[in-house]
Amino acid sequence: MKRNWFLGDVLSQLYDRPRIWRGARDTRSLSDLAEALLSTAGEASGYQLATSLLEEYAKASEEEKLSFFIHLNEELEIDASHVAALASSYAEAPTTDGFKAFSEAAEPRRQELLRRLNQPEGATERLVAMRADLLRFRKSNPALARTDHDFRHLLRSWFNRGFLVARRITWDSPARILDKIVAYEAVHAIEDLDDLRRRIEPEDRRCFAFFHPSMPEEPLIFVEVALTLEISGSIDHLLRLDRAPKDAATATHAIFYSISNCQEGLAGISFGNLLIKQVVFEIAMELPSVTTFSTLSPIPGLKRWMDEAGFEAHSPKDYRDFAAQYLTEAKRKGGEPLDPVARFHLGNGAELHNVHPAADGSEKGLAQSGGAMVNYLYDLSKTERQHEAFATSGTVAASRAVLSMAAGARKKTEDTAA
Amino acid sequence: MKRNWFLGDVLSQLYDRPRIWRGARDTRSLSDLAEALLSTAGEASGYQLATSLLEEYAKASEEEKLSFFIHLNEELEIDASHVAALASSYAEAPTTDGFKAFSEAAEPRRQELLRRLNQPEGATERLVAMRADLLRFRKSNPALARTDHDFRHLLRSWFNRGFLVARRITWDSPARILDKIVAYEAVHAIEDLDDLRRRIEPEDRRCFAFFHPSMPEEPLIFVEVALTLEISGSIDHLLRLDRAPKDAATATHAIFYSISNCQEGLAGISFGNLLIKQVVFEIAMELPSVTTFSTLSPIPGLKRWMDEAGFEAHSPKDYRDFAAQYLTEAKRKGGEPLDPVARFHLGNGAELHNVHPAADGSEKGLAQSGGAMVNYLYDLSKTERQHEAFATSGTVAASRAVLSMAAGARKKTEDTAA
Amino acid sequence: MKRNWFLGDVLSQLYDRPRIWRGARDTRSLSDLAEALLSTAGEASGYQLATSLLEEYAKASEEEKLSFFIHLNEELEIDASHVAALASSYAEAPTTDGFKAFSEAAEPRRQELLRRLNQPEGATERLVAMRADLLRFRKSNPALARTDHDFRHLLRSWFNRGFLVARRITWDSPARILDKIVAYEAVHAIEDLDDLRRRIEPEDRRCFAFFHPSMPEEPLIFVEVALTLEISGSIDHLLRLDRAPKDAATATHAIFYSISNCQEGLAGISFGNLLIKQVVFEIAMELPSVTTFSTLSPIPGLKRWMDEAGFEAHSPKDYRDFAAQYLTEAKRKGGEPLDPVARFHLGNGAELHNVHPAADGSEKGLAQSGGAMVNYLYDLSKTERQHEAFATSGTVAASRAVLSMAAGARKKTEDTAA
Amino acid sequence: MKRNWFLGDVLSQLYDRPRIWRGARDTRSLSDLAEALLSTAGEASGYQLATSLLEEYAKASEEEKLSFFIHLNEELEIDASHVAALASSYAEAPTTDGFKAFSEAAEPRRQELLRRLNQPEGATERLVAMRADLLRFRKSNPALARTDHDFRHLLRSWFNRGFLVARRITWDSPARILDKIVAYEAVHAIEDLDDLRRRIEPEDRRCFAFFHPSMPEEPLIFVEVALTLEISGSIDHLLRLDRAPKDAATATHAIFYSISNCQEGLAGISFGNLLIKQVVFEIAMELPSVTTFSTLSPIPGLKRWMDEAGFEAHSPKDYRDFAAQYLTEAKRKGGEPLDPVARFHLGNGAELHNVHPAADGSEKGLAQSGGAMVNYLYDLSKTERQHEAFATSGTVAASRAVLSMAAGARKKTEDTAA
Repeated sequence: MKRNWFLGDVLSQLYDRPRIWRGARDTRSLSDLAEALLSTAGEASGYQLATSLLEEYAKASEEEKLSFFIHLNEELEIDASHVAALASSYAEAPTTDGFKAFSEAAEPRRQELLRRLNQPEGATERLVAMRADLLRFRKSNPALARTDHDFRHLLRSWFNRGFLVARRITWDSPARILDKIVAYEAVHAIEDLDDLRRRIEPEDRRCFAFFHPSMPEEPLIFVEVALTLEISGSIDHLLRLDRAPKDAATATHAIFYSISNCQEGLAGISFGNLLIKQVVFEIAMELPSVTTFSTLSPIPGLKRWMDEAGFEAHSPKDYRDFAAQYLTEAKRKGGEPLDPVARFHLGNGAELHNVHPAADGSEKGLAQSGGAMVNYLYDLSKTERQHEAFATSGTVAASRAVLSMAAGARKKTEDTAA
Repeated sequence: MKRNWFLGDVLSQLYDRPRIWRGARDTRSLSDLAEALLSTAGEASGYQLATSLLEEYAKASEEEKLSFFIHLNEELEIDASHVAALASSYAEAPTTDGFKAFSEAAEPRRQELLRRLNQPEGATERLVAMRADLLRFRKSNPALARTDHDFRHLLRSWFNRGFLVARRITWDSPARILDKIVAYEAVHAIEDLDDLRRRIEPEDRRCFAFFHPSMPEEPLIFVEVALTLEISGSIDHLLRLDRAPKDAATATHAIFYSISNCQEGLAGISFGNLLIKQVVFEIAMELPSVTTFSTLSPIPGLKRWMDEAGFEAHSPKDYRDFAAQYLTEAKRKGGEPLDPVARFHLGNGAELHNVHPAADGSEKGLAQSGGAMVNYLYDLSKTERQHEAFATSGTVAASRAVLSMAAGARKKTEDTAA
Repeated sequence: MKRNWFLGDVLSQLYDRPRIWRGARDTRSLSDLAEALLSTAGEASGYQLATSLLEEYAKASEEEKLSFFIHLNEELEIDASHVAALASSYAEAPTTDGFKAFSEAAEPRRQELLRRLNQPEGATERLVAMRADLLRFRKSNPALARTDHDFRHLLRSWFNRGFLVARRITWDSPARILDKIVAYEAVHAIEDLDDLRRRIEPEDRRCFAFFHPSMPEEPLIFVEVALTLEISGSIDHLLRLDRAPKDAATATHAIFYSISNCQEGLAGISFGNLLIKQVVFEIAMELPSVTTFSTLSPIPGLKRWMDEAGFEAHSPKDYRDFAAQYLTEAKRKGGEPLDPVARFHLGNGAELHNVHPAADGSEKGLAQSGGAMVNYLYDLSKTERQHEAFATSGTVAASRAVLSMAAGARKKTEDTAA
Repeated sequence: MKRNWFLGDVLSQLYDRPRIWRGARDTRSLSDLAEALLSTAGEASGYQLATSLLEEYAKASEEEKLSFFIHLNEELEIDASHVAALASSYAEAPTTDGFKAFSEAAEPRRQELLRRLNQPEGATERLVAMRADLLRFRKSNPALARTDHDFRHLLRSWFNRGFLVARRITWDSPARILDKIVAYEAVHAIEDLDDLRRRIEPEDRRCFAFFHPSMPEEPLIFVEVALTLEISGSIDHLLRLDRAPKDAATATHAIFYSISNCQEGLAGISFGNLLIKQVVFEIAMELPSVTTFSTLSPIPGLKRWMDEAGFEAHSPKDYRDFAAQYLTEAKRKGGEPLDPVARFHLGNGAELHNVHPAADGSEKGLAQSGGAMVNYLYDLSKTERQHEAFATSGTVAASRAVLSMAAGARKKTEDTAA
């Protein structure tokens, strides 16, 4: 019966927070508003200017946005020569004043701008959206990478693990949140709320998400889990419409079959590893009989890699074996696995446990991997070690079964080659 | 009837968050743990190391803490020559890579350490407490000001207005929170919960505080307000035990009679201005008949200033006049008012409205100002302008009444001098 | 910012309440369990017996249920001769003991049984469902009306207005609750959650429901409201898919276009009047510009009445005029309006404001009233008076427009007759 | 992480419910208002009349209240002759209509009045307070027992176990609730909030209360528990100021050392048994190591019984032995134990486990029992059986130790007598 009387209440204020100090629309250009916001010493007028800038930004055209970002990039930039001089002085005479002078000069003013923008209700969400725009513009304006570096730096600090909240998503969650889950699902598409219901209402299914207190209606990342009696080898089987839910209390395995990042504006800020481990913990607490934690994951890059290598599969089993080879051997420059999902799970310390042919009959599944899927096993007694080995020497942890499939594939291609 | 179904619930998780990945005690030195935390690439092991460091810190002796801070200050410092070189290169060839290399080198590694420490439950609160220690050590180790500069920089970013929650404190608040209000009251001491009751239960009294979602049981700052029919001239009158509460709905004035910062570890990060303006807004929304907002404030530096100037008061009225002179004329180097409370309210754009003799008969009140108190008036139609005038040219906004008292005081001392 | 810290929390316990004192299944017959429950003096064993009876009831066949109800009806009945004797004694000598003896004997023991059943978690909901069964059985077993009388008596007492909670239903409500709204809508069918979204998400729409604290997941009754600039004359128009939501703040009219009772087991216990008036109040508080409150209602009995009277409509306008006549003149024995919807709204003190032809093009709408619909106007300055006039002398309040339509219809039929 | 998103929110509306349909003060007499409320058919005007009656009642003088109760008792009484006739008819011809006619006539109209009064916000609490008044008046107006019989009948139905909520009281509870705990403590007085803190904040202490959703700020009954390593023999020891809290996780015993009913107006409606069993369940769930549940209870009637019997104690041990005799042998007419606390716990199925001399050194403890206290043991494997034996044949379950003390006392008095 223990619960925190206070917290929910304290925090519901975030949302209820009235928009205060609203004045008339301030139609100066975004850059002018930014300069005004940076130069004001008054917190109240700062609040108003931040509100104005965010609202004008929301109404701005693509040209206006780009010109704003270029302003951030060029005008709110460090003065490198000045900074170099300050650093040199400090190197010679490491005084406190020297340090402060250097520190202030070394941080581009756009960082302070972002902090000052983050005052009105909903500002955090808008800044995340602003970064999504920026990432778009960066493609054709590579120099904006500097500004993006600062956005990312600040967002990493604000979306620090200590500020995140893990939350189970159920059929009792608000429809508005469930809507977002439907929209953000990136692995196995969810058609509508009724389709989602099948993934969260049965007692042998779980869904968890991370939220940030300042964006309580926006999931940051979520994971879908099936509770089973074995390591699942087929997503078609897991998601088939006519299945009968099982008793959660007797489940022994938890299968993470979908994990989706929700916020484009938080690209490059990693939550997945922490969410998976949090969910392992939650499930282990709730259901002591669940002791095996594994994924059932897509292999997005398989077909492309096979095509490039000129490998051809004549059966689902061929895809399976090539998948094993691909996952264990194919690297990108830098030595990491070529497959992005593999990079993620192996980087978390998971191991390649099994590969399944004909596991995903969806159009997307067939297109990317000929229907093959893979289990990454999270054995918590090994993840730390495997993570270290992967991080330091690129070692891919794989079961005998997977290694043997890979060997089969190698043999096949060697035979062909010969 | 509108409310957010979701938020309170999402956020109550912050508090309920289980302590996960707890292993055995890791008794390496704080500095060793810090280095390990900075060098790990694994988020899970990072979580564990952060937990260990925070727990070992909590058990550490003063010597161990100091040595930890010195480690942060000396070893997790920038390499100034290297940074200078990077800045020069970037000045010459402003490439993205050059920018990133510079940015990373320009930030002392202790900032990343603090971000990594902020993972486990309760970490934010512990880091705030850590800074309170640091401020203590800094007194005898001035070089630690560099490390404090980084703490403050990060805490300012994390305790940004956009993340704060304003909350009314009432007799329905948890006793645990009320206990803290009693403990943190810094202006007019509260004896115990029953004494606090008199300041929050009557319908003509209000109390508001700011909280941070990651420290939901710790107020950051709070303000106490009396709803009245006039600008109060006596704290003794406001707080007397036998008064009868008035009908809030007919009140016309809101008197801010106490404002207290709660967290030593957040010194130098200003919340007061924003809280006052938020509360003005809240009260204006709730009680449209309240249109005048004023403080009833102490004058902590009056007696000391008089003593130093050799001024002597022969009556409460003398104190009043000297107070007016002191508040309008006494400056510290830099030109700001000598009195810290005056600096705060005038800096917010308030004006000196009136000074009252014999307004605070408490031992403390008599000792610091001979019992005189002052009203700072927050006239929202003027605060922005007065703030700018104060910030740019040091102009102290004062009513005719106060100016005339100050003139009286000047005359008195000139007479004496003559 | 005022809210009750405690209540939400206290009450969330209702739902979290563990099922305690669960023993093995008790497979005695329902009647035996009922007798055991009535004869036990132990509250703890009572709790267990109540749990057993409710669970066995849930598993019982139709025959077993009927036999249980017959047991309640025959065996847990008053002993009328004994009661008559006690009443006579009390009439002669009105002593306290005589009163108590009579009172206890006058209440059938089935009432005490129901009270004792209402102990375990979820019992209230099960008893409501039990009554729905009873109402079904009553059709072919009219004598069960006695037992139903007692069910209804007790449920009226338990679902007293003082215990009900009005709650706005929004897109932030839990999907589980929204599902129920979809299922219970009885007037204008809702297809699925996405269809419901159109009735609750736009800012010019509202939906309110009554709940009971012991059945927090079961709405008792709900009403759907459109905010408009005029009294709507067409449900097709209100619900069309391509409409653009209007700004709620400028709305002047609130149109109650659907009101549905949700619980068959609460038949005969009226919530509608109170809900409408509560919602009028809520909307008036939220949106001061809304000053006209009206329904847009179906006329379920029109076609049948016309058929029986041999009236024929040749155009939508004919339906409109006959509707006006029907609503103002057609009575059932007892003198009340024949139309059930008319009985409800006129009984609440509303007035017949207008009738619209071709307002409901749905199959159901065409079948029951040729597409005609009616506005009942809730003018709070008149409802009390109109209610009294209706209740005491059957006076139907109707606008000139409606009276004139009715006159038109009369003329038509007289012409035809002539 | 599972919780009900909805409930807390739904129910917080109970408290927030606005007072609607407020008109001008209606100054008719209470009896006139009662008659008007009973005769109105309009629910809205009923709401208004209920509000008026409750507000006028709150302002009424003692005479006006008494005259109102006499009105209820005499005028809203059954017509016994008429009821007798209806019962006779029904005995002869058991028709549904006959049953309904009888049922309606058999219930005094004051019951319907109470149901109609229970509409506005806060009505339930006011009706409970009204009954407290009634119980007072009944002392000098015994005929009011009839009206009280109806109040009690209705309140028992409304405060049915199925509607109650068990809630742990902690230092995180609202001060307003804690205030009430201080005020309502009836066994071992609590001085103020700081004194209460010692009973709820330490981790080896618990406090639980029952609440009703319509009176969320009013505990109905609460129990205070100490977690220990043995069956406590001294309240002085349990409550001493300087004790060090123990680790709850290692506790093996739960000692119920105080249980207090809070609402005079609910006298005769028993919650204690259910609360104790709920708390046993809660503690067993939270702390599996706690397996023994016992009280440490006062013996309020010991001294009076000894005085009446002419027994004299010469030592604490004498009190202990007389207490054992008193508790096992002293009966009131009807055969139940003379001691009210013994009646309660033995009636719940507990057994007399031990009696302690010099266990309560407070003035009250010495006055009522010479400082002796008693443990009633709740052994859940025996409570049902012991309860039945007690209820049917008055058997008092007692340990050998207690029986032997009682024998000692008997011997003492026989020796004295001899």
